[in-house]
Amino acid sequence: MADKALRIKHKAMINVDLGEGYGNWTCGPDSETLLPLIDHANIACGFHASDPLIMLETVRKCKVHGVKIGAHPGFPDIQGFGRREMNLSLEELTAITIYQVGALKGFLDHEGVPLHHVKPHGMLYSVCCRDYEAARAVFQGVPKGVPVFGLAGTCMEQVAHDMGIEFIAEFFADVKYSPDGTLLIDRRKQPWDVGDINRRVTQQLETCTVTAIDGSSCTLQINDHRISICCHSDSPGCIDIVKETRRVVDAFNEKHFPSG
Amino acid sequence: MADKALRIKHKAMINVDLGEGYGNWTCGPDSETLLPLIDHANIACGFHASDPLIMLETVRKCKVHGVKIGAHPGFPDIQGFGRREMNLSLEELTAITIYQVGALKGFLDHEGVPLHHVKPHGMLYSVCCRDYEAARAVFQGVPKGVPVFGLAGTCMEQVAHDMGIEFIAEFFADVKYSPDGTLLIDRRKQPWDVGDINRRVTQQLETCTVTAIDGSSCTLQINDHRISICCHSDSPGCIDIVKETRRVVDAFNEKHFPSG
Amino acid sequence: MADKALRIKHKAMINVDLGEGYGNWTCGPDSETLLPLIDHANIACGFHASDPLIMLETVRKCKVHGVKIGAHPGFPDIQGFGRREMNLSLEELTAITIYQVGALKGFLDHEGVPLHHVKPHGMLYSVCCRDYEAARAVFQGVPKGVPVFGLAGTCMEQVAHDMGIEFIAEFFADVKYSPDGTLLIDRRKQPWDVGDINRRVTQQLETCTVTAIDGSSCTLQINDHRISICCHSDSPGCIDIVKETRRVVDAFNEKHFPSG
Amino acid sequence: MADKALRIKHKAMINVDLGEGYGNWTCGPDSETLLPLIDHANIACGFHASDPLIMLETVRKCKVHGVKIGAHPGFPDIQGFGRREMNLSLEELTAITIYQVGALKGFLDHEGVPLHHVKPHGMLYSVCCRDYEAARAVFQGVPKGVPVFGLAGTCMEQVAHDMGIEFIAEFFADVKYSPDGTLLIDRRKQPWDVGDINRRVTQQLETCTVTAIDGSSCTLQINDHRISICCHSDSPGCIDIVKETRRVVDAFNEKHFPSG
Repeated sequence: MADKALRIKHKAMINVDLGEGYGNWTCGPDSETLLPLIDHANIACGFHASDPLIMLETVRKCKVHGVKIGAHPGFPDIQGFGRREMNLSLEELTAITIYQVGALKGFLDHEGVPLHHVKPHGMLYSVCCRDYEAARAVFQGVPKGVPVFGLAGTCMEQVAHDMGIEFIAEFFADVKYSPDGTLLIDRRKQPWDVGDINRRVTQQLETCTVTAIDGSSCTLQINDHRISICCHSDSPGCIDIVKETRRVVDAFNEKHFPSG
Repeated sequence: MADKALRIKHKAMINVDLGEGYGNWTCGPDSETLLPLIDHANIACGFHASDPLIMLETVRKCKVHGVKIGAHPGFPDIQGFGRREMNLSLEELTAITIYQVGALKGFLDHEGVPLHHVKPHGMLYSVCCRDYEAARAVFQGVPKGVPVFGLAGTCMEQVAHDMGIEFIAEFFADVKYSPDGTLLIDRRKQPWDVGDINRRVTQQLETCTVTAIDGSSCTLQINDHRISICCHSDSPGCIDIVKETRRVVDAFNEKHFPSG
Repeated sequence: MADKALRIKHKAMINVDLGEGYGNWTCGPDSETLLPLIDHANIACGFHASDPLIMLETVRKCKVHGVKIGAHPGFPDIQGFGRREMNLSLEELTAITIYQVGALKGFLDHEGVPLHHVKPHGMLYSVCCRDYEAARAVFQGVPKGVPVFGLAGTCMEQVAHDMGIEFIAEFFADVKYSPDGTLLIDRRKQPWDVGDINRRVTQQLETCTVTAIDGSSCTLQINDHRISICCHSDSPGCIDIVKETRRVVDAFNEKHFPSG
Repeated sequence: MADKALRIKHKAMINVDLGEGYGNWTCGPDSETLLPLIDHANIACGFHASDPLIMLETVRKCKVHGVKIGAHPGFPDIQGFGRREMNLSLEELTAITIYQVGALKGFLDHEGVPLHHVKPHGMLYSVCCRDYEAARAVFQGVPKGVPVFGLAGTCMEQVAHDMGIEFIAEFFADVKYSPDGTLLIDRRKQPWDVGDINRRVTQQLETCTVTAIDGSSCTLQINDHRISICCHSDSPGCIDIVKETRRVVDAFNEKHFPSG
C-alpha cells in the first residue's frame, strides 16, 4: 500500500485524445459511445491529426456531452501521427504550441466553451518529460491560467512548478511504462486485455505504483496533483478499455471520496 | 470627379500582406523597411503561406512599429500560395476561417495586441467577392466585433452588411481590375511602373473609379466605408510601390482631411 | 438489348483503388480479402492518399496475388482525398502526373513488376472527362506505351485516341451516373445495396447502358475497348460489392467468352 | 602535403543542390548563371523542397546545360527544409528513398536523360554518415547501378562498399566541419568569405585535410574515389562561392590531370 505522502488527494478523472481523424480518415470509436464515459478530451489541433472540420465537429460533440476540452498540440507531422521524434528549436516549440492552442481556442470561442487544459501529444509529450528546456519552451505557449496535463516526476512537472502553471498528473491505462517511469510510445497502439487494464488502473490509483515492462514496480510521484487517467481512442478495443477504466475510477472515487 | 455619393468619408490607409514566407523561404522585402510605411498588416496564417515561427516574428515586428494586425486566412494550399481555386464545402470554409483566425489570435494574445480585422487571401478573396454563400460561410468564422476587409460592390460587402459586420473597403494599387470591377489574381505578381501606381491610386482615391484592363472606366462603390489601399509584398519592386502609394495617400489625406 | 456496335469485345475485368490509407490511418478492407477478387489495382501515389511505406506494402501484396498495378495520380490534396476540385495550370497537371507515376514506378522497379496502366483519381478523373486540354495535359505525363483507364464517350477517350494511347473503358459498380453519362463524385462514399450492384453491373455489361440518378437510361459508348469495372475500397461494404461484381463479371465472361 | 595513399586519383568536379524552391518561393541564384559553372546537380524531390513543376523545369535546364542529374532525397519536412532531424524507421527510410528517386526518375525518363547519382539531403545525409543501419536502409532505395555521393570515412562509404554501390566522395566548400570530420548542418546557411572558400577548397583538394571549427586539422579519407565538391545554392553569395570553387577546381585539374 502507498505511504501517506503518495496518497491521491482528489477524485480521479479520465481523459481521452479525440479528433484524431484526418480528412476522410477516421480514428477511434464513434464519439457518441465514447463521450459519456470520459471527463476530459484532448483535441488534436491539425499538426499530427485532425483538420478544421473535424475540430469543429469534435468541439460541438464534447460541448453536448459536457466533456471538458483541452488542446493537444503535437509535432508538425501528420503522416507520422506526431509519434516520430523531430528536432525543433526551442523557439519553434513555443511557436507551434501557440499556433495549435490558438487554433483550437478559435473553435472553443466560436462555440462558447472554455479551454480547460493543454496536453502535448505523442513524441512531443515524451520530449517534454525528459527535456527541461523543451518542456519550458512548450509551456511558454500555454495561455496564462490554463493547466497542463503531464507525467509527474518528470521535467513536465518541474517546469510547470517553476512557471507557476497548475499541473494535472496523468496515469496511463493503455501505455506501457519503462522501469524508470517513462512511457513507451509506439507508432501504432497494440491491443490490451481488459483484465490487465483493470489491474493496471487499480494498482496505479490505489498504490501510486505501476508494473513496468520488465516486471519491476515503479513508483509514480503524484504529490498533491489532481489525477486524470489517459486512455487512447486509437487503441484497438478502445471502448472496452475506457469502460473498464470508468468502472475502476468510479469505484475508487466512491471508496475514497464518497461525498463527491 | 466623383459625385457626392461616392466621395470617401475617411482618411485612407494602406494595408500589406505580411508573413508570406514559409520555413526557410522568404517573401517580400525586409519588414523593417516596409513596416514604417503601412497602417495595416494582413498576416498569413499557415494555410497558403507562413508558419508558426514566422507568425510569431511578424506579430512582434508589427507590434514594435504600431502596425494594426489582421488575420489573412486562405485556401489550404501552401504550394499554390492560395492562388489556385479549390472547391470547399460551406462548412469547410467556416472551419478553415475559424482555425486560421484562431491560430493568429493565439500569437496576438501571447504578445498582447488585439486582432484588428480579417481579410481573406487570394482565391478565397475572389470566391468571396462573387459567391454570397461562400462569403457568408467565411464570415461566420470571423470573431464577433471584428471588421472585415473586402471589395465594395461585391458579395463581400453585401454579406458583411447582412451579418452586421463592419466593412472596410479596399482599393488595389498593384492588382489589375476586370471591366466589372473584379480583380485578376495571378499566381505570381508582375512588376509595375511606379508612375502607373501613382496614377491608379490617385484615380481610385479622387474619383472612386479605376481603369480596367480593357481601358474602360469602372466605378468603385465605396459608400461610407473606411478605405485601405492594398499593396502586395510579393510584387516585384514592392518597396517602391508602397512608398509611392504612401505619398499619394498622405497627400490625399492632407488635402481632404487636414485636421486628421 | 445493346445493338451490335456496342457489344463488348473482350472479357470484363475488375479494378479497385488501393493504398488509400495515410500514415496511421487505414482505408478500406484488408487487402488479403480483397486482392484475390480483383484484376487491377490503382495505387494512390501520395498526393490524395498513400505514403511511401503504404505504397511499398501495397505493391508487394499485389505482386503476391498477381494483381496488375496501375498508378492512380490525384490532385495534391490529401486532406480532401483528391475529391475537391482544384484549378491547376496545364503544365502543373502534366508535372503532377509525371511525379506521381514516377514515384509509383520507383516501387514497381524495386519489386520487379511492370506498370500496367494509369488512371486519374477522383476529381482529376472528372476534370479529365469534361476538359480536353486538361486530359491532354495529364496524359502527357503518362509513360509511352502505358494504357490509361477512363470513361468512354468523354474527353478522356478522345484524348487517348488523339495521342495514340491505349484506352481501357471503365464501368462503375458503386458510383452514380448523371443522365449525361458523367459520374457524381462524393467526398465520402455512400453504402450500396448488393442487389443494386448486381443489377447495375449486369445492365452495364449486357446492354452498355446504365440507369442514371433521374431514372433515365444512358448509353455507355465503349466501342472496341477492353472493359474494367471499377469498385471503390472506401465504399461501405466494399467486400460484398466486389464479391457481387466478381460473380456478375465471371458469369458474363463465361457466357460470352467461354474459351477464355 | 598529403601522403600517397590519400592522393586524389581523378579530376575533381562540382555539385550543387538545385530545385530547392517551393511553389511561388525561390531559392538560390538564377540557374542560368549557376548551371554553366557546375558538373552535377542534386535535384530536390518534393519532400524537403521542390515540387513537380520546379522539378520539371530544373531537369529541363540541366539537360540544356549538360549538367549531370542526381536525385536528392530528404526527410519529409518541407517546412524544416529537411534540416530538422526526424526519427524514421528503417523501412520508412527505404520507402522515402524509393519514392523520391522514382519521382525524379519520372521527369528524367520524360526528358530522356539518365539518373547519374543519388545523394541524401541535409539531416538525412548526416544520419547516413553516422548510422550504418540508416545508411543501409536509404541505399536500399537506390536503383541498381546508380552511384551515391557521400562523405568518405563515414558509414555512407562503408555501406556503399558493403552493398557494392559506387561511391563518389564529397568535399564541402561552404559547410563547416567538426574535428571528427563530420559536418555541421545549420537550418539556414551563413555567408562565407570568398578567400576562405579558396583556401578551404584548395586545402581539401591538395592535402585531403580540412580545418575544423576548433582550428584542428582533420584528415579526409577519400581512398580512390572520384571527388565532387559540394556548394549550396542557398548560401548567401552562392554564385561567388561557386565561381571561386570552379577556379580552384579547374586549376587543380589542370595541374594534376593535364591530359583531361
